[in-house]
Amino acid sequence: MSDFGVFFGRADQLLDTSFAGEPDIRAIDPAAASVSAFDLGLLRGDGVFEATTIVDDVPLAWHLHVRRLLQSAAALDLPTPNVRALDLFVRAAIRRMSPIARAHVKLVITRGVDATLSAVDVPTSPTVFAIIDPGFAPKKPEIEVATLERELLRDSAQRAPWLLLGAKTLSYATNMAARREYERRGAQNGVYVTRDGFVLEGPQSSIVLREGARVVTPHPRIGILHGTTQVELFAWASLNGLEVAYEDVEVERLHAADQVWMMGASFVQSVTAIDGRAIAHDRAATDAINAFMQTERAAIDAWTRAHVPG
Amino acid sequence: MSDFGVFFGRADQLLDTSFAGEPDIRAIDPAAASVSAFDLGLLRGDGVFEATTIVDDVPLAWHLHVRRLLQSAAALDLPTPNVRALDLFVRAAIRRMSPIARAHVKLVITRGVDATLSAVDVPTSPTVFAIIDPGFAPKKPEIEVATLERELLRDSAQRAPWLLLGAKTLSYATNMAARREYERRGAQNGVYVTRDGFVLEGPQSSIVLREGARVVTPHPRIGILHGTTQVELFAWASLNGLEVAYEDVEVERLHAADQVWMMGASFVQSVTAIDGRAIAHDRAATDAINAFMQTERAAIDAWTRAHVPG
Repeated sequence: MSDFGVFFGRADQLLDTSFAGEPDIRAIDPAAASVSAFDLGLLRGDGVFEATTIVDDVPLAWHLHVRRLLQSAAALDLPTPNVRALDLFVRAAIRRMSPIARAHVKLVITRGVDATLSAVDVPTSPTVFAIIDPGFAPKKPEIEVATLERELLRDSAQRAPWLLLGAKTLSYATNMAARREYERRGAQNGVYVTRDGFVLEGPQSSIVLREGARVVTPHPRIGILHGTTQVELFAWASLNGLEVAYEDVEVERLHAADQVWMMGASFVQSVTAIDGRAIAHDRAATDAINAFMQTERAAIDAWTRAHVPG
Repeated sequence: MSDFGVFFGRADQLLDTSFAGEPDIRAIDPAAASVSAFDLGLLRGDGVFEATTIVDDVPLAWHLHVRRLLQSAAALDLPTPNVRALDLFVRAAIRRMSPIARAHVKLVITRGVDATLSAVDVPTSPTVFAIIDPGFAPKKPEIEVATLERELLRDSAQRAPWLLLGAKTLSYATNMAARREYERRGAQNGVYVTRDGFVLEGPQSSIVLREGARVVTPHPRIGILHGTTQVELFAWASLNGLEVAYEDVEVERLHAADQVWMMGASFVQSVTAIDGRAIAHDRAATDAINAFMQTERAAIDAWTRAHVPG
């Protein structure tokens, strides 16, 4: 239990873009209750989060996560996070538990307690906290996946922004149900597909294809999270002479690809079969990518800072 | 603050169908933290809920809510709730605050703390609690509504049960975003519609049409919650000689109907305009329905117990 860390921050610092000081951080006993039963993060899944891997006290690709967090907060009409203060907050949490050889960190921002419940004597401003979990299990390098109908169309995200399709919210009940479904089918991950036959993403992962010298991922405009590990994989590909592209990807291309990867938390998995049908895969290449992701952080960070779209 | 009640129950009683005793109930200071930061209800919106109005210590249509709660729990692969024990639990919570002239009660069941986080010394069984809120504002009897694309098709719920379309989960971030969207459009409620032109439901309400002597609501198989107040409205209609029907409803029928109602928590609202276009409405009839809902509880309960499907 003492291996876990739970740290609360203050919304009036972390979600105030004019705040210029050192943000307060408050460590909570991980075994203690720390959130109100009235918190809208709990009652409505109304909030956003980011999670990444910490290696040697460094939260990997943190700038990509913060960038996405800003987009998620905007999609939910939450106050704009203070990037500098959030950065200091997360690094302070890590420092409290240093040295961390390897762990998982999650940053959560909820809308806080329902402001209409003014009779409740608890803050109605957003709730901000970080969890550091040193116990996460290593993922399998090779997986089979199942396709799962997401019942949207290629242009749904553009037509209905209130569906929050590109935002990383706390409302993950369907992602968890999809996970149970692919496990029931004997797979280790799932790939959501649109009704009109396009690839989306996994319930908790991004997907990337290699087709010859091209490395391709579904364009985020189709209504998926812009994967941080996907961007890191693009860095690897680009630094290794491959062409990278965001485009709408027809489901059939998964079966014809030279390699399909699923990924998250700076780790890439090689897909060996889709819906029980074997596909081309190259374990050695995948192992090499994961090694590169670990050892070439400076090169990856430089590339991703230079190439991530606004 | 003392007006609010927060009551926690025990999963080993309330979610154990073999439990035959009196369930424990623990009142929590509403201003205190009561939920773990590791609770999957918070981190993943992974849980279910029900809410209803209490009038004179009676939770209205509670049997309908419990029935839906069982369906929601099954959809999420949660343990099966013990109906008798949950009933006793909620009534015990109400008794602690009795007499309650009028209030709102919400019952929440989350998946509890992530069982993979075994190092955390907190229970990993589901979290069960009830909130009693005496301060809820009366709703307007007449509202304008905006249609909101939900980007599903008529058969989506049947094709993709992992989308949990008929379950009342804690993952309401998109419902809250839809609410902000219809408010931006100057409306007081929204109506989700499918891509192929069928009416679904409001982000937090059911919708019912009157067409002559027929009272019609979208069939729940289209991927909506089976509204408890909708069933109560069907009781009113049936007891007043009208025909009631569940069917797929084309969006155009909203504009041609003799009356459109939206409803929740045993209160019916008269829709006066859809997307800025006035529709037929009858305020006096709606007021009469709401009066009937309040005074004719025995008749409504008898009808709904006899007529609710499976």
